[in-house]
Formats: sequence, structure tokens, C-alpha cells
Amino acid sequence: MHLPATVGDFTDFYVGIHHANNVGKLFRPDNPLLPNYKHVPIGYHGRASSVCTSGTEITRPNGQTCPPGSESPQFGPSKRLDFELELGIWIGEGNELGRPIPIEKAPEHIAGLCLLNDWSARDIQAWEYQPLGPFLSKSFASTVSPWVITAEALEPFRCAQPARPEGDPQPLPYLLDEQDQQRGAFDIQLEVLLCTEQMRNNNIPPARIALSNSLNMYWSVAQMIAHHTVGGCNLRPGDLLGSGTISGPELDQYGSMLELTQGGKSSIELPSGESRTFLEDGDEVILSARCCKDGYPSIGFGFCRGIIKAAT
Amino acid sequence: MHLPATVGDFTDFYVGIHHANNVGKLFRPDNPLLPNYKHVPIGYHGRASSVCTSGTEITRPNGQTCPPGSESPQFGPSKRLDFELELGIWIGEGNELGRPIPIEKAPEHIAGLCLLNDWSARDIQAWEYQPLGPFLSKSFASTVSPWVITAEALEPFRCAQPARPEGDPQPLPYLLDEQDQQRGAFDIQLEVLLCTEQMRNNNIPPARIALSNSLNMYWSVAQMIAHHTVGGCNLRPGDLLGSGTISGPELDQYGSMLELTQGGKSSIELPSGESRTFLEDGDEVILSARCCKDGYPSIGFGFCRGIIKAAT
Repeated sequence: MHLPATVGDFTDFYVGIHHANNVGKLFRPDNPLLPNYKHVPIGYHGRASSVCTSGTEITRPNGQTCPPGSESPQFGPSKRLDFELELGIWIGEGNELGRPIPIEKAPEHIAGLCLLNDWSARDIQAWEYQPLGPFLSKSFASTVSPWVITAEALEPFRCAQPARPEGDPQPLPYLLDEQDQQRGAFDIQLEVLLCTEQMRNNNIPPARIALSNSLNMYWSVAQMIAHHTVGGCNLRPGDLLGSGTISGPELDQYGSMLELTQGGKSSIELPSGESRTFLEDGDEVILSARCCKDGYPSIGFGFCRGIIKAAT
Repeated sequence: MHLPATVGDFTDFYVGIHHANNVGKLFRPDNPLLPNYKHVPIGYHGRASSVCTSGTEITRPNGQTCPPGSESPQFGPSKRLDFELELGIWIGEGNELGRPIPIEKAPEHIAGLCLLNDWSARDIQAWEYQPLGPFLSKSFASTVSPWVITAEALEPFRCAQPARPEGDPQPLPYLLDEQDQQRGAFDIQLEVLLCTEQMRNNNIPPARIALSNSLNMYWSVAQMIAHHTVGGCNLRPGDLLGSGTISGPELDQYGSMLELTQGGKSSIELPSGESRTFLEDGDEVILSARCCKDGYPSIGFGFCRGIIKAAT
């Protein structure tokens, strides 16, 4: 299995508004969304070298953590290992440095979509992320699904962007395009399955732990591309954009363990009788996606898989 | 002029402690350094595609800003364009995913050093950077100097890491190596020159606006490499690490306009009679560096140059 392209740069966005809201609530119960969220398609640079193919084993990372109440950090395997349910966007044609891609041209730069699991070590993240953002908590691996669903194949599953809630600001002009508002979203069902080692050994099939949809994105892919390049940054063919975690508004639609267990306060019960707050060694996470519409053949994304291996 | 390598990933650190302190003071006067700073060599993923050669024109980026007191953001050219005086580290041999580079082996992975100007749009940065870190405020361009000073050539200019101030924590074991403590720092003089268009037109030579030294790094290059890979992240040949801005403790040693003008509150006076708070169109920033030691030929780094071009 090979990556479909050499990833020049991997950029991860944060456009799943329910995820941003859920994660924000864990830190700031009264004010979960920061003031920039509804104006800026928030994103950050990810690690390109560790983007890997479906099926690659994921070694639990070691790192620094500083549990609440500790005076100084400790070093060891992450105890709060998590997945993130994301869409990946493969860039086709790029742009020259200093030449932004206007939003109306952005769809021409999308080669296709895939699933993306942005594995995350929450305890490492909590300690390291200020002031410059996540680093080692994400850079140990990001898994993509095995094939690229071309933009052309997804055309029938395009739809209008969900209306913004009343009172939300309008996007600034560089992020606003009538065609994008009418046809810029995708209707793709997204699913997360979990299978523990015990389940595999006892032939218990993977359990669905979340079911979401790409309509939970607050910003469209075209808005992400227009924003990414508006200051002059150049995209190159093979660049990968992540949507950020796409959670739905309900508990069984959350795209990360962090949200499903409210930061580890509750647990997920599995058909094997086991329970989980975060991922344990031997756990396999499987992302899948499907587009369905009357009169069209449905399109699957293949499985985006990874089994957690013990830290070395 | 070409880049010396294809930059697979560009990682920017934040190991200049006086810079971290100065910038922190602007936001948090009583508590400038965050609790993780003296434990974690803080770094984040930068943009590889826009790393460019010395002499490349730097187009002032457009972007969203939200000046203090504004209710909603505006769009337009950055008004607080800045440089950052950094060392760049070119990675030679890489490591496999999941196989950290122990600190005692880290020096073998350094191909060489260069100068790096991590151009920054401070007003865009202030509005966008929470919660995931700087993005468009940095991704429009980063300039490297024209040649690579090999690790071997720099050997005579290695020296002991400056003693940590009393009360500072010891590095965790994975960041601590006796040889690195004794010989892991570099003694490199670093200089920032500014030349405005008016100065060029009147044959006034570039004015020195800062003079610093790489001994102002709180973490060594080996510590940066050991930290970067400790969770399993793979480095590849040609990867570029930035040190982060290397400021000295005194006002004339600050490696960015943000610090030199205290966030734009004061200004720099130039020999042409002009003054600057941030960079203006036509300004050229020139970084230079030199290693000197009795009994050894001195080594220059060449000039890392860029002229600001008006936003388009």
C-alpha cells in the first residue's frame, strides 16, 4: 500500500463546529467557541512525514505530560490516546507563491477526498500546546484511507451549505461565493468502528461508536482553500488538507474519544463487556464513509484502519 | 538560486528564551513564560512550500485582522509586518517512523546550519492563533540564507550550554546528555540590518538594528531533535528546523520588530531620518551571522535577504 501522492504539506483545519464546541466546553464551559471561530476557517500546519496508509500500526507515543495537580511533568507512554474522524482533501493543481486562489476557482484545485484519522495524544497535547499549538501530540501518525474519491465522482453528493444559525456573522467577501453556498457542501455519511483485541479474538465484529456526516462542517472545502492561500501561501499538487474532527450535535455522533467520554469522565461500553475512556493497546479504529442518493450508485471510501501497538 | 534541499517538513521551535519572555510580557506582564517552557522545547509545524531563497521578494500578505476595540474582523494588507532572526538547521540522515533519535545520537543528524527569517504578520497572528497556533501569519514566506554551514565546519565554535538560572528545572532524562551539555551550544554572532528604499536611493548603507548570539538559545539543537522524534515522529533528509527568534537580553539585541518596538509602542530611528514600528513596503531586511575564534578562520553565513513588496 502506498500513499496516493507525495504530501508536500499537510494542513489540518478545525471546521467541525460541534467538535470545536465540545472541546471548547471542556476548557471553557461558558464560552466554548473563541471569537475568531465564525470568521476564520481555523487551521494549522500538520506533519507531512508521518501521514501513513491504512493498516499501518500506530505505536503509542511517549512524551511529556503534566497531569492536573502535578508540579512538574513526567515522561512516558500517552495515557489518553485518541482518534479523530476527519475528511482529507487531496490538492490537485497548486498555485504560485503570492497568487491566492479565489474562492470561485477553489473547486478546480480539489483532486479528491479521503478519510483521515488524525491520531491524537490528549495528555501530551494538553501540556505542550500553548502557545504555538499541537506538535508531538499529533505528529506520530495520521492515517489516510486507501483510495481517492475524485471531485467528479462526488459531484452528485454536493449540496447547499447548511444555513448559519441566526446571529452568526456572514463570511467576509473572500470566503463568500454564491455557487459555493449553493453547492459547496458534501453529504457524506461518516462512521467510526472500534474493535478491541478481545473482540477480534472472540470474533465479535467491530462496534460502531459514532455516526456523523460531513454536513457538520461550518466551512466548505472551497472556503478552506481560499483562506489557506489568501495571504499568498502556495499549495502544491499532493498537498493534504484535513477538515478537523467532524462530530455531529448528538453524543453518538462525536468523532473522538475526548468528546464521546467527555474528557475521560464517562466510558464507552463495548459488546465484549469491555469499556473504554481512551484507546488501549490492541484496539483497532476503523473509519468508513459512504455517499448515498436515489438514482445514483452509492460510493464507499474504503476503510481507514489502524491498530494501536504498545509504546516502545 | 535554489534551495539546498527539498524541504519535506519545516518545524519552527521557540528556544530563544529572551524572545519568549519579551513576547510573553506583551500578553501577560506578570507571567511571561508559560509553565511548560522550561520543560518542553516548544515547537510547531511550519509551512514547507513557502520556504524560499535569499533575495526572493516578500509580498505583504492580505488577511483577517481584528484590531483592539473592533467588534468584527477586517480584511486587507497586514499593517504589522515583521521579521524573525533565527538559525535554521538542515537535517541530514533521518529516522524511521516510531524510532526516536536519542539525544546522544542527535548531532549525527545535523547536516548544517543557515540563517532563517521567519517573516510574520503580527496583526494576522494575533487574531488567528488561538487555539491551534500561527498559520497564515507565517505561511506566506520564510527565507533561508544562501549556503549551508556544515556541522563539521562549526565544530570549533561549539561550546557548553549556558548554565540554567538557579531554580530552573533540570531537563528530563531524554533531553539530558553530558556531551551535549558540554559541547551542544554554538557561539555564533547574529545580526539584523535594515535598509529602506529611501536609504537605498540615497546610498545610505543598511543600518544594524539588532546584534544577538546563538548562545541565547535555552535548548540545544540536539535537544530539539531528541524532543521532535521522542514520540516517534520521523525526520527526513532535507527537513528544516528553525530555532525560533534568537533575541538577547538587551533592547539592541532583540530579533524582531515586535520586541524592538515593544509591540509598536516605540519606534526605531534610522540614519535616513526615517523611523519604523513595523516593516514598510520597500524595506529590506538582511540577516547575517559570523563565527569567530582565535586560531580559527572565521566563518560567515552569507546574507539572508528579502525586500517587502506591496500587497496585491
